[in-house]
Amino acid sequence: MLHAVIMAGGSGTRFWPASRRGRPKQFLTLGGGAPLLRLTYERIEPLVGAERVRVVTSRATANATRELLPELPAANVLAEPAARDTAACVGWASRTIVEADPNAVCVVLPADHVIGEEGRLREILAAGARHVAETGGLLTFGVRPTRPETGYGYLKLGPVQRRIGGLAVHVLERFVEKPDAATARDYVVSDRYLWNSGIFAWKATDLLEEIRRQLPLLADGLETMAADPTAADRVYPSLPRTSVDYGIMEGARQVWTIPVDFPWSDVGSWPALAEILPADGRGNVLQGRVLCRDGAGNVAISEGPAVATLGIDGLVVVATPDAVLVVPADRAQEVKELVAAMEELGWKDVL
Amino acid sequence: MLHAVIMAGGSGTRFWPASRRGRPKQFLTLGGGAPLLRLTYERIEPLVGAERVRVVTSRATANATRELLPELPAANVLAEPAARDTAACVGWASRTIVEADPNAVCVVLPADHVIGEEGRLREILAAGARHVAETGGLLTFGVRPTRPETGYGYLKLGPVQRRIGGLAVHVLERFVEKPDAATARDYVVSDRYLWNSGIFAWKATDLLEEIRRQLPLLADGLETMAADPTAADRVYPSLPRTSVDYGIMEGARQVWTIPVDFPWSDVGSWPALAEILPADGRGNVLQGRVLCRDGAGNVAISEGPAVATLGIDGLVVVATPDAVLVVPADRAQEVKELVAAMEELGWKDVL
Repeated sequence: MLHAVIMAGGSGTRFWPASRRGRPKQFLTLGGGAPLLRLTYERIEPLVGAERVRVVTSRATANATRELLPELPAANVLAEPAARDTAACVGWASRTIVEADPNAVCVVLPADHVIGEEGRLREILAAGARHVAETGGLLTFGVRPTRPETGYGYLKLGPVQRRIGGLAVHVLERFVEKPDAATARDYVVSDRYLWNSGIFAWKATDLLEEIRRQLPLLADGLETMAADPTAADRVYPSLPRTSVDYGIMEGARQVWTIPVDFPWSDVGSWPALAEILPADGRGNVLQGRVLCRDGAGNVAISEGPAVATLGIDGLVVVATPDAVLVVPADRAQEVKELVAAMEELGWKDVL
Repeated sequence: MLHAVIMAGGSGTRFWPASRRGRPKQFLTLGGGAPLLRLTYERIEPLVGAERVRVVTSRATANATRELLPELPAANVLAEPAARDTAACVGWASRTIVEADPNAVCVVLPADHVIGEEGRLREILAAGARHVAETGGLLTFGVRPTRPETGYGYLKLGPVQRRIGGLAVHVLERFVEKPDAATARDYVVSDRYLWNSGIFAWKATDLLEEIRRQLPLLADGLETMAADPTAADRVYPSLPRTSVDYGIMEGARQVWTIPVDFPWSDVGSWPALAEILPADGRGNVLQGRVLCRDGAGNVAISEGPAVATLGIDGLVVVATPDAVLVVPADRAQEVKELVAAMEELGWKDVL
């Protein structure tokens, strides 16, 4: 059977002040009419059914997750006792699914991305799942670059192995680290480099075999927890901390890539909203009660207060009832450091 | 006897979002520990006594004014039925004072300026009042320019007429309109041009005589209201609308100027706070819960929300619980237009 794993462990601070400790990015409604996690669930549910959707999240957000997804059986929300990055996350979910369905095929999606053309997404995921069910190996989905993005990892395509459902399945030649600007410009014009979407498909047993081979301590921990679910509190915090990309995919024996053509954004920081939301005639992305007079290229968002700007360009301005952020768009990645500075100041109530 | 008139009719919008329709600038605590109007009262009260302080304000703010100045006899708060600019304001106050004290000498001060060295202020006002009591004429106080300000009117000094209390009393040669930047630079190095502080002294009967000569319709209206106080509602809205500078001082037969040396600011817009509040090592004026990281020359003020900025320079950022302003310091004068735009949008609740 086909199962879905939604990775919702994020606790990012790049969307402060909208995101907070108890309300990470996947709970934000970034222009889509519903929180990103809810939209992710609604995208995948028609493909697999609610009983076969698992969400891995943190203890702190487990209740909020269940409230947001009331259709899910409560046990399908896996609450990590500690954050151990995505290798442990997908390992735990896969081991749990195998317990119920030894032949399970999983599609794995981050909870906090924005994806358009849902029907197309499901077609592609279904085709990818069919491929790994038939062939084995681990599958990544790659997005054609539309700009010289230096903030993403890339997938370098190898030869086409087969076609399925009208899609090319490539051998993955290699994972490529975040490039410099010149290299990223080369990648845009090349047709061999794709953005790593963070969306995967595999047979659960194939993933667990790769974990056993590459991360034996993780495999041991997963078996301990499978034998005794009450052991999670003790075991999980000591699992190796690594990502699925670094810890599993890069060293895996067989990795496939399917280039995809649905609109995709990981919405990595405030300025990325320009990728998914309409802008006014001067390139301003405005949401909520915002007046942006005589300015261009701004992202101005309000979750309540009236925001009025005049004569500013290229700024991110975000207002909530208790906090306000102002930062140039090209430094929005540094909001993390700003949050750290506020933590030092003891501003806990707004973090 | 010496009386004081505080002009508190302002309804300015240049301090939005801190100032609102029902809470104009004189009610703001711009770093001074108490609202500007309260500080103005406390500055002048030791010189004249509470019973001889009159405050002219709008109907909308009369109650708030009485609450802020509970020491004042209620009748000393004159509530204008309509805004008719400062000539009507000082005329009404002077006519009211003459009714009680035909020999009254008045010092007149705006409610929303910031003045340092209060003892020195009172010495200077007392000397100025003595001069006009002895000599007649209308007296202005002039502030030595410390920068090439193009936003103020200037006073061009004529010869010294006399000395009183160690102060020079000049004949005023003429009022000078707001200069261009080059002219303003000349004025800073000259010793003959002073900023028009908006502070005056005169015998009430001398002022009323000038009004009778130059603004007979205003004089008639004041007499009608003096004869029948209930006529104010009908008469006041039809009084000529002009300022004390244009309507009375410029055409007056005898005008004196005393150069003053107390610290003075009319705090005309947000960036002017830099004149009256301490800045950090990078020239940022910060008030309230504000973090300004890696930025210079900003004015960042919070009346509640946590405000965090990163990498911005020369901006004004002001946050209240229901509204946020972001504007470059050199365009802060245009906040008026921004407020007008919000009015068009129907954002009445935050205006």
